Amino acid sequence: MHTLPTLLSKIASYAASNPFPARPQALYEPCDYILALGGKRLRPALVLMAYELFAEDVERALPAAWAVELFHNFSLMHDDIMDAAPLRRGQPTVHTRWNTTAGILSGDAMLIYAYRHLAAAGDPGVVASLLQTFNRVATEVCEGQQYDMDFETRDAVSLEEYLHMIELKTAVLLGGALEMGALCACAPRPDADHLYHFGRMAGIAFQIQDDLLDTYGNPAKFGKQVGGDIMQNKKTYLVLKTLETAPPPDRQALAQWLQTGADAPGKVDAVRALFDRNRIPALAAAEKQRFQKEAFGHLAAVQAPEARKAVLQQTVADLLEREF
Amino acid sequence: MHTLPTLLSKIASYAASNPFPARPQALYEPCDYILALGGKRLRPALVLMAYELFAEDVERALPAAWAVELFHNFSLMHDDIMDAAPLRRGQPTVHTRWNTTAGILSGDAMLIYAYRHLAAAGDPGVVASLLQTFNRVATEVCEGQQYDMDFETRDAVSLEEYLHMIELKTAVLLGGALEMGALCACAPRPDADHLYHFGRMAGIAFQIQDDLLDTYGNPAKFGKQVGGDIMQNKKTYLVLKTLETAPPPDRQALAQWLQTGADAPGKVDAVRALFDRNRIPALAAAEKQRFQKEAFGHLAAVQAPEARKAVLQQTVADLLEREF
Repeated sequence: MHTLPTLLSKIASYAASNPFPARPQALYEPCDYILALGGKRLRPALVLMAYELFAEDVERALPAAWAVELFHNFSLMHDDIMDAAPLRRGQPTVHTRWNTTAGILSGDAMLIYAYRHLAAAGDPGVVASLLQTFNRVATEVCEGQQYDMDFETRDAVSLEEYLHMIELKTAVLLGGALEMGALCACAPRPDADHLYHFGRMAGIAFQIQDDLLDTYGNPAKFGKQVGGDIMQNKKTYLVLKTLETAPPPDRQALAQWLQTGADAPGKVDAVRALFDRNRIPALAAAEKQRFQKEAFGHLAAVQAPEARKAVLQQTVADLLEREF
Repeated sequence: MHTLPTLLSKIASYAASNPFPARPQALYEPCDYILALGGKRLRPALVLMAYELFAEDVERALPAAWAVELFHNFSLMHDDIMDAAPLRRGQPTVHTRWNTTAGILSGDAMLIYAYRHLAAAGDPGVVASLLQTFNRVATEVCEGQQYDMDFETRDAVSLEEYLHMIELKTAVLLGGALEMGALCACAPRPDADHLYHFGRMAGIAFQIQDDLLDTYGNPAKFGKQVGGDIMQNKKTYLVLKTLETAPPPDRQALAQWLQTGADAPGKVDAVRALFDRNRIPALAAAEKQRFQKEAFGHLAAVQAPEARKAVLQQTVADLLEREF
């Protein structure tokens, strides 16, 4: 059993000992660049924490852990092109610093490298089972990104569709990371499944929280511009809940704001007032709580000593209790 | 043992029985579209032919064969974006018919689906060995595409560098397809290696031939515009061989033509005359012959009954004997 900081330093060591090739430089430099931008390394840490529920020698789970991190960064590199995002973590995105071609091809190479680390993640039986999970989750992440883009141009999106989209785009990779850690340790299938659902449900809760923070977060603590989702007319949980539950005049008012540009005067305050009047923050918090509770129910069902669950439990609880 | 047409119909049946999901439609429609544009299905056929050197029940090699074809089409979809190609096989490319975003994300999904078929290609031991080969070759194809793009903006490219680039970008996938067929049949490692080198060497010979055909092909039989490489200043085998072997005045003349636009009057005839004067077509044909001979030496070394090699031998020989 190791603490989160110890696990993170093991991940950093593994990455340092397994660099990308030096050439062709233009292919691999953007891969090094996006990884150097940082990030919490949450997903690989989840792989290791799940592994440590069942086995010692956590080093054996490092190839699978790094595969998950490379996949995550591949998806960021390609999503940034698709979203035309100029910045990531305060630095120029790959396609901005280089060009779209670099973003596409280096992303492809990074995805293939994820599979290379996966192929080194154990004996053939373990690799085959990891591959099943990884492929399923990777497909779902692409599908989630597609639905997210579809929703931008669609008028009516239901709350159910939205929850399904964030499940695919964000939550299944957290679940998949935990499932893969269990598979590396040859844990029983039911435990691997419970861990998957723990991560998946926690991921949905996390995303609802993220929607709340974007509108109600403390500007000093929230990394992005508070109110950004409202300015960009994003169909968040808050918007869709309002459109489903508010009385018709409020729905119409919100629908009208969604037709305006990012700099329409008074937009953020007006939309926030519509949310407040309809108790949307409380409803969203309750929904988040519901997913969170279900998530921890799955963790409780995993057949492993409670003491071994402490690091995982605390890490996920911390994530879900960020201040508003 | 089956004929090429029979193998192709088995590939078509497998593809028809294993369609992409219906939804999200915008994600999978471009995948169906590029596959429906056709192509010779050479790579999956090579997987099956290699398998049939060692084993019956060729159906068992179909998942690996289809994985290779999906990988090939993924690389076409992304390369078309990077090359800003408007047409493929006479039809609009995916990013032209839809948009760049669709080309990126659908390509990603197709690559992941290649790995899904691979994961279904046999018992865990076979899958693990297939994954090693597939990952190695997939990485090399990305590296080849990067070198190809690097060469466009570089002044001096050596013939050696060019041969290495076409080996990575084109040839290793043909070799990898044959190696994977052997691995599906649990063939001995030396035979799998000989098949890999057979495909790799034949692939280089094929690419040199393609460079020759682009300048000297029969316009009625060659699919593309004859002289297209010259118009676009492509650094082909013919150009690089001239720059390495011709006397200085001819090198300078060629270097000057390489600075002109596609529609410079008399360009194609003048460059062709420079090639002819320096016997470049004969030198290229000899180089092609050298690779071809080495390729068939590897096929001869494979420990399988000669009768079983007939279909593979004929298919590759036909490819390499297209008319000028």
